[in-house]
Amino acid sequence: MTDQINCITLASRPDGAVTPDNFRLETRALPDPSDGEVVVKVHYMSLDPYMRGRMDDAKSYAAPVELGAIMEAGGVGEIIASNSPHFQVGDFAFGMFGWATHAVTKAKLLRKIDPEVMPISAALGVLGMPGFTGWFGLNEHGRPKTGETLVVAAATGPVGSMVGQLAKQYGLRAVGIAGGPDKCRMAIDTFGFDACLDHRAYASASELRKALAGECPNGIDIYYENVGGKVLEAVLPLMNPFGRIPVCGMISWYDAGGLGDGADAGPLTAPKIWRSILVKFLSVNGFIISNHFDRLAEFLSEVAPKVASGEVKFVEDVAVGLENAPAAFMSMLKGGNVGKQVVKLV
Amino acid sequence: MTDQINCITLASRPDGAVTPDNFRLETRALPDPSDGEVVVKVHYMSLDPYMRGRMDDAKSYAAPVELGAIMEAGGVGEIIASNSPHFQVGDFAFGMFGWATHAVTKAKLLRKIDPEVMPISAALGVLGMPGFTGWFGLNEHGRPKTGETLVVAAATGPVGSMVGQLAKQYGLRAVGIAGGPDKCRMAIDTFGFDACLDHRAYASASELRKALAGECPNGIDIYYENVGGKVLEAVLPLMNPFGRIPVCGMISWYDAGGLGDGADAGPLTAPKIWRSILVKFLSVNGFIISNHFDRLAEFLSEVAPKVASGEVKFVEDVAVGLENAPAAFMSMLKGGNVGKQVVKLV
Repeated sequence: MTDQINCITLASRPDGAVTPDNFRLETRALPDPSDGEVVVKVHYMSLDPYMRGRMDDAKSYAAPVELGAIMEAGGVGEIIASNSPHFQVGDFAFGMFGWATHAVTKAKLLRKIDPEVMPISAALGVLGMPGFTGWFGLNEHGRPKTGETLVVAAATGPVGSMVGQLAKQYGLRAVGIAGGPDKCRMAIDTFGFDACLDHRAYASASELRKALAGECPNGIDIYYENVGGKVLEAVLPLMNPFGRIPVCGMISWYDAGGLGDGADAGPLTAPKIWRSILVKFLSVNGFIISNHFDRLAEFLSEVAPKVASGEVKFVEDVAVGLENAPAAFMSMLKGGNVGKQVVKLV
Repeated sequence: MTDQINCITLASRPDGAVTPDNFRLETRALPDPSDGEVVVKVHYMSLDPYMRGRMDDAKSYAAPVELGAIMEAGGVGEIIASNSPHFQVGDFAFGMFGWATHAVTKAKLLRKIDPEVMPISAALGVLGMPGFTGWFGLNEHGRPKTGETLVVAAATGPVGSMVGQLAKQYGLRAVGIAGGPDKCRMAIDTFGFDACLDHRAYASASELRKALAGECPNGIDIYYENVGGKVLEAVLPLMNPFGRIPVCGMISWYDAGGLGDGADAGPLTAPKIWRSILVKFLSVNGFIISNHFDRLAEFLSEVAPKVASGEVKFVEDVAVGLENAPAAFMSMLKGGNVGKQVVKLV
């Protein structure tokens, strides 16, 4: 057992794009666990786009990370000391362990993971928060119907690939958007999308729109929104009446600060968005999965067997070593990852 | 019985604000009714903001009015000749008679009105499309709960006044926005709003927001959207988590063309709207009441008795004479009307 913890803290807030000096690698003393607490050795930590929002000092659904505090992250780890009857040394659990090699945390905040059933890292992606986000948003706000057409960007990411695979299983046409020909091929070959467009191949939203229109001959019924920006601008005029737009993120705008508040959307104006909502009777619903943990068991009961059987596939991008987390995070924000981005710590 | 009809046609499409020369007063021959048709003498015609959208050549939920065609409008009229077993001469009916003194129309497109029950003009406002719009949007998309706070603009108009009165009956705090101190007084004294702000008294959205924040100490749960623009900009940051925004119009942007498509919203950008939806888990739903006529009976069964009992009040602004319809319409688009704008033709 160690008495030290390596961690990455928020050294400064980004001014636009995230830079390496926004982070600081530190060594801290590992506190002793109190009653009801456990000590966790983190095996995998998760990197997710929402963390970009936490770095800004803007009002959001969650408080920003304080300057000097450890960056937030979910992780999967092994219990190495326990003051709780619910966990034994050697158990594995999911929890919010931060960007850190170890954590001392209340046992009641953890969810036990069985390493026999699935690779433990799956609890960060396909069976974790991103997969749950895809399942919930598609079902609750997307209200998919057989024969409809769905579009989702970041199609090989853990949210987009879940959305696309479920849409296919529900009988929809699924059209992905991804960055680069390799990801587009993976979207089709691995995840079963009917088509996938490389947004980098289109200089403007209107060019992307033309290509999308070709792949969506019956229009778009569900646009699962996780990117904003050029894709949103391309999609809006193609939405069908009574279309649904679940909104779980807008990564293309995050670097503008304030979770996208300061972004310049060019020709996509507020009145254009509002008008599309009005004249096409759109249903646009923002959500964050942490408000819906009451649906987690339902998600796992539907999707975990499909992951076990291979019916739902997942791809992970594994960085190794805590010190490489900032680079992996910055790369992910630019679409450099292929599949769910995790960092392996042991 | 007449053999001529006076009507107002669309002479040209507006370039920005509507002008008198967009309209032309014409006299046409009244066609003979075919089998199943009736001849209607229009007593009241309705003027509504949605008509502004029909004047543009932009794709919307309905086709634009063709150049040279009679402007669209609902009306209430008297059957003066009938080739239908369902209507007798002397019956009254609601139908889409256009901006015209008479119409020949299929009987099956009409809804019979009993002039003994209510003034016939009520079928254009409080018990017609605007009242129905208010009721449907509030209930279906607003999902009101006792103790919540609702904001609606055009508070003395037929939609806003229905929304505010129902909100009060459902146990909400209702805060109106209207143009000028007289309308604000009417919103409170006649329609029972808890408060009403004069948007003209605030030079900027941020000043309006400060005043709104004072009247909405617990934030805003439902913003019933019918105006867009400065009010939307003021409201968005005050929305509570899980807030709902039914969108039935955006009149402040209509004159920019394309149903607001070309409007300049200043500091209210697309990313700001999208971010609000995301971080506050908002539910934004556009709708047009003509898609929901299956709910009309339900609306009438709830609201008609309340109108009869005086529990739901209504105010009408009556212009007289078809030739005065364009001026009344242009004035309404600038908020010059007080209550539901109708034109009395006989």
